[in-house]
Formats: sequence, structure tokens, C-alpha cells
Amino acid sequence: MLTYDEKKQALLAMADALVRNKDAILLENRKDLEEACEITDVMKDRLRLSEERIVSMADGIRRVASLPDPVGKVLEERTNEAGLLIRKVSVPFGVVAVIFESRPNVAADTAALCLASGNVSLLRGGKESFRSCHAIVKALKEGLKQVGLPDGLINMVDDRSRESAMQLMRASGYVDLLIPRGGAGLIRACVENATVPCIETGTGICHIYVDREADFDMALSIIENAKTQRPSVCNAAEVLLVDSQIAKEFLPLLQARLFGVELRLCEKAQKIIDGKAAEELDFDTEFLDYILAVKVVDGVEEAISHIAAHSTHHSEAIITENEETAAYFLSRVDSAAVYHNASTRFTDGGEFGNGCEIGISTQKLHARGPMGLSELNTYRYIIKGNGQIRG
Amino acid sequence: MLTYDEKKQALLAMADALVRNKDAILLENRKDLEEACEITDVMKDRLRLSEERIVSMADGIRRVASLPDPVGKVLEERTNEAGLLIRKVSVPFGVVAVIFESRPNVAADTAALCLASGNVSLLRGGKESFRSCHAIVKALKEGLKQVGLPDGLINMVDDRSRESAMQLMRASGYVDLLIPRGGAGLIRACVENATVPCIETGTGICHIYVDREADFDMALSIIENAKTQRPSVCNAAEVLLVDSQIAKEFLPLLQARLFGVELRLCEKAQKIIDGKAAEELDFDTEFLDYILAVKVVDGVEEAISHIAAHSTHHSEAIITENEETAAYFLSRVDSAAVYHNASTRFTDGGEFGNGCEIGISTQKLHARGPMGLSELNTYRYIIKGNGQIRG
Repeated sequence: MLTYDEKKQALLAMADALVRNKDAILLENRKDLEEACEITDVMKDRLRLSEERIVSMADGIRRVASLPDPVGKVLEERTNEAGLLIRKVSVPFGVVAVIFESRPNVAADTAALCLASGNVSLLRGGKESFRSCHAIVKALKEGLKQVGLPDGLINMVDDRSRESAMQLMRASGYVDLLIPRGGAGLIRACVENATVPCIETGTGICHIYVDREADFDMALSIIENAKTQRPSVCNAAEVLLVDSQIAKEFLPLLQARLFGVELRLCEKAQKIIDGKAAEELDFDTEFLDYILAVKVVDGVEEAISHIAAHSTHHSEAIITENEETAAYFLSRVDSAAVYHNASTRFTDGGEFGNGCEIGISTQKLHARGPMGLSELNTYRYIIKGNGQIRG
Repeated sequence: MLTYDEKKQALLAMADALVRNKDAILLENRKDLEEACEITDVMKDRLRLSEERIVSMADGIRRVASLPDPVGKVLEERTNEAGLLIRKVSVPFGVVAVIFESRPNVAADTAALCLASGNVSLLRGGKESFRSCHAIVKALKEGLKQVGLPDGLINMVDDRSRESAMQLMRASGYVDLLIPRGGAGLIRACVENATVPCIETGTGICHIYVDREADFDMALSIIENAKTQRPSVCNAAEVLLVDSQIAKEFLPLLQARLFGVELRLCEKAQKIIDGKAAEELDFDTEFLDYILAVKVVDGVEEAISHIAAHSTHHSEAIITENEETAAYFLSRVDSAAVYHNASTRFTDGGEFGNGCEIGISTQKLHARGPMGLSELNTYRYIIKGNGQIRG
């Protein structure tokens, strides 16, 4: 029920409160780091906060405050035969639960997106970041209170056991939407156990198909960008499919261009360039690393069927100068985002013009691809009459 | 991938095939009826087919054939900073599974709606209507073959055990959307057990609130219509909330008007008119019968909180001449359809202008209220570039 201005003021106060409480947050974060002995350095880096990271969290919240209000949009309007004025209006879900893993900044990010979209947030962080997330949420609640809002608009599950995550997944009637933010294991656990409405997010086994009529320079720069610009994210390319008609010519160029990337080659590709043999599993793996599985296919048809069998339906691309081949690929590849002559790295809330992102949906219900504030709303029908009854 | 005309021709051929095979269908239906000994007469009537019912099934399919194509609509279009043309386009889900109960006409209805929306249907009927549904689907498949389409576009689960329903609910990766059509038990089973995306449909504990500033004649005719025009459907009213300021005057009028309807009265109402005392459970029951639970409330605020606690979020109405009170109610009652001065009976795909309905969603994910062809589609982002890479 909050107005746009009320939400805006709350978000700005939350951002200020984060910075003001940075010492307390860093103290709790150090405790988390001390406890987290058996985790990898990569995970430690994700877990570690700094003054700089807290400031950028606050800036993220301020950016969200500047986005347009998704609530109360009239999506459709019609007057029916009985003379009823039927309006389809966007409304918040209500209570949005988010289960996330190590990075504590997700707590601030998620709380801001939920508040901006009119939802109450219920956060359940990973056990490694337990103390950091609590300190962050404590600061955010302080911001809410400063502008006279109930701090129950943002909530943190006060328990780090698996049991609390399971209870959240099964809190029918209390949780209107569950969004897992994390690795494949977490997402699978939510999809398999949730009785509350749940959005499958994240994992991206993204494919790039280089067609016989591709511009090689364009193909090479797109593949290099999709694989190496940021290998650890879900919209990075993991599998390259090369048309057999150009494989002999193209693969050597690829190998030279992707110096430093480990290529895992199908049998046909091995006959053309040297490299490690791909195992069956390599075409079903989200490497999130400088590794690319390479398969030679007999044209666009085989590329499409390989993608249908192995994709996680996140993002795929075709590189070709032939508009017909492109149209064929674009109409038959059923993924959230399908590209012609562009890098899969563009599948992102910011790049798509949402200004933010709570996750990237890889399922088909409610939302596909980047989910922003609008996707954190549902709708209601509001109907005005003057005594109409049904005949 | 079918064009609008291909789908239209298929639907018309399916309708003709139904009528052509009416004797075979009626024969199988008689076998179902003979087997179904221990079911009630009401259920037998739902199960029983006649030449007339088969003809109206066929007419229903022809109506669907005349609806606009939901597939391939450009829902949004923008060019981003990198110069990518990003189109959000409506596409079918893929495989839509529908688990339904006794009425065999649901098989024809569902198969037609799925085909018209570009989806493959996977039907699993109740065990009572097993033979009838198979005969219907056999006829529909004959229609598909006549227009040269694969009959695998429509499928019927060839098993009537609970196990097959459970397998359908858990067929992740094979079923893109599951829609239960039936009673509360079936819907609960799907919501609790489904690992595939599932839409909660149907049950309607619909409320009407008569405000102190209501037009009594309007209120009485709306209540009569919402309760008695067709008590067995989900958009019929089950609970009446009456403002305490007008209860003394209004309730006697109500009792006179709803002659033949069993009123179940809260304590306050019992002090005004004679009638059966309501039990706690009566305010959480979908009677689907000539029964109305009546509660006296202290104004719109208590009406809203009672609805929040007891509604199934299907349809609710306020009767008042006061626009402010109406606006307050409409903005705070979180149900799929909220009415001012009209009957809840209008929550219907036809009345809302969809021309059809596969169910009424009572949850918030993807769709709320009547689901038509558009709600049987999801979307994809199709992005055209000329070599863009992400910086």
C-alpha cells in the first residue's frame, strides 16, 4: 500500500543506514570469515566485505530507488457486454522469500528490490554469511524505522539450519513467491521440495552456434566475449557448436583466438585441431571457468536438436549472415533469450533496460529471463459495476 | 510452429470427428456409467454423455477455432544502448498436462484450448470417465490425422491409477505446465506433490460485503444472483458479510429474498433473524449448494480482515454507494477479482472477453483469475544484433 515516494524515501534511508553501520557490518563479517575455515578462497572472496563493497551496496539501493514504480499499472482495461468496467492492475505478490548463498550483498540487493516492488521480503542466507546478513538487515531495518515504516517489511530467517530452508519452501499460505539465488544444488532443492510458488533461476549452459555462413571475425569476437569476459556468470557461453562445412577453416582460428581457454573437443573437432577430448558430461556442464566444450554439427538442424537436448534454456546464439537460417534458429530454439549475431552475455536486467535484476528465470511460468521490478508483481482484476447480475 | 490457419483447420476437423464418432463415444460412456456404481447421482449426471452434449462439445471446439491466435505477439520491443533489438514475444509453453475429474467434456475442451494456444496436451482424466475420455481423444486424433497433423499433439494417459497422476506431477523436464481441473482434493494433491510448474485453480470461497451505505435492492439482487443462479460453480458466493450498522434492517429483507437458501448465522445475526447457527468451519467451506454463511461485521475494516483470513482469493464484492469505501475495499482485498456493485458470478473467461477458459487461477504466479489462450502462452526474448559484444 506504500506510495512511490514512501518507498523511495525508505530506500534512500536504507542506503544511508548501511553506510552508517559499516563498522558493525564489517565486524560481523570478520566473525563469519573466521568461522568459515573449510571453504575455498573463491568462496571466502565472495563472503568478504569491505568498506568499498558496503558503499557499492548502498549505491545499488539508491539506483533501485530511482526506478519507476511497477505497482498499480493498468495492464488491460475493457468494458464487457454487461457494462462492467474490468481493469487488470499490477499488484505486488505479498511476501517474497529468497534463499541465497554466500554473497552477503544479496541480502541488501534483494531487500531493496522487494521493497521497491511493494513486497515484504523474507531472506534466508547461507550459513557462511549468517552474521554479515544479519548485520546488513539490522541496518536496513534501522533505515525503515527512521522514515516511520514497520521494520517487518524486511525479515531475515533467524536460523541457519537446512530445516529452516525446508520450512520456507513449504510455507504455503505464508510465502507468495520463492526465489532461490545460488548454485544448481540450491535451485534443484527448491524446485523439488517447494510447495509454495517457486521460480527456477540461474544455471546457464549457454550455446553459440557458428553457421556455415558466419562472418568469422564476428564469430570469434562474440565467442571470446561470451566465454572470457566474465566466465563465472550464468550468461557466459559453455558450449560452442560449429557447422561441419566450415569447421576445418574455423577451428584453427578459434584455437588461436581463445589462447588460454581449455577446449574440450568432440571426435570430429579432434581430427581438425589438437586438444583435450570432450567427455559426454562436458556438454551438460556449466563450467563457469575458462573451459569451452566444442562440437562439430551438420548444420543448423543438428545445432537446434543438440541445444534442445542439452540447454538449460537460458541464452543461446547463432552467428550467421543468412537471415533465413537465423530466423529458423530464432523460432525453434526455446530458451529465455535467443540471439542472432550477438554475445549471450547481454542476458541481464540492466542490459535489457530493467535497471536491476533479482534473478534470471530459466523456467517458463510467470517470467523468463531477467526478472526486474515488474516481474516481482502479479495482477488483480478490479471490476466496477452499478448492480450488474449475471443472466 | 503451426500457423493460425493450420490450427483452425485442425480444430474444425476435430469438432467434426467428435460428432462423426458419437456412437462409439456414447458406447464407451455407457460402459463407464455401468462401472461407476458407487458414485452419487450428481456425479453420474456429470459423467453421462448424450448426443446433445457431444454436439455442444463440438460447438465449443468450433468457438475456440474462431478465437485470435495468442502465439507470436510482440509484447515489448526496445533497442538497447548497445544497439540490440530486443523483442519479447509470446510463445507456447510446450507440453501442458491437465489432470481432471469426472466430466468427460473437459477432455475435448482442454485438448482444443491447448492446440489453439500452440501446446501439446497431455490429459489425465478421472477413473470414472476413463473409457469416455479415451473415445473422445481417439476421435480428436482422427481429426488431426485428417488434416495431416501428428496425432501426438493430443495425448491421453493410458492408466487410471493414482500412480500415473503422481508421475505426471513429477515429470520435470517433460511437462512445462500442469493444470489441475477438479475439486479441492485434486488441487491440493497437485500443489503439494508437483515438481513441475503448477497452477492452483478453482476453489472459490467468495465473499460479498454489504456496506452501511449499500443500496439494499441492489445488494439483495446481487446476493441472490451470486448465491442462487448457479450454486455449484466456483464463482458463486458462499459468505455474506453485513455491516453491523444496517444488519437489523437488512437481514430480515435478506431472509425474505433468499427463501429456500439455508442461512448459517453468526451470533450477532442470530439475534436479529431466526436461523441455523453457523459453526466455525462454515466460514471456510465452499458449499457449492443453496447454503450461505452470514456474519455481521463492524464496517469495511473487519470485512477486509475476515476476507484476508478466510478467502481462497478467487472473487469478492463490496456493495456500497460510497466511492471512498469502495476504493478502500478494492485496493486492500487481494483476490483475483474484486467487484464493486456487481455479482461475483462474472469471474469467467467468457465474461472477461477471453472467449474461453481452461480454469480460474486462485494463486498469484503467472496468471490470476480466468485463464484463456493468452495465459497458455509464455514468452521468449528474441534479440537481433550485428556483432555486439559486452564491454
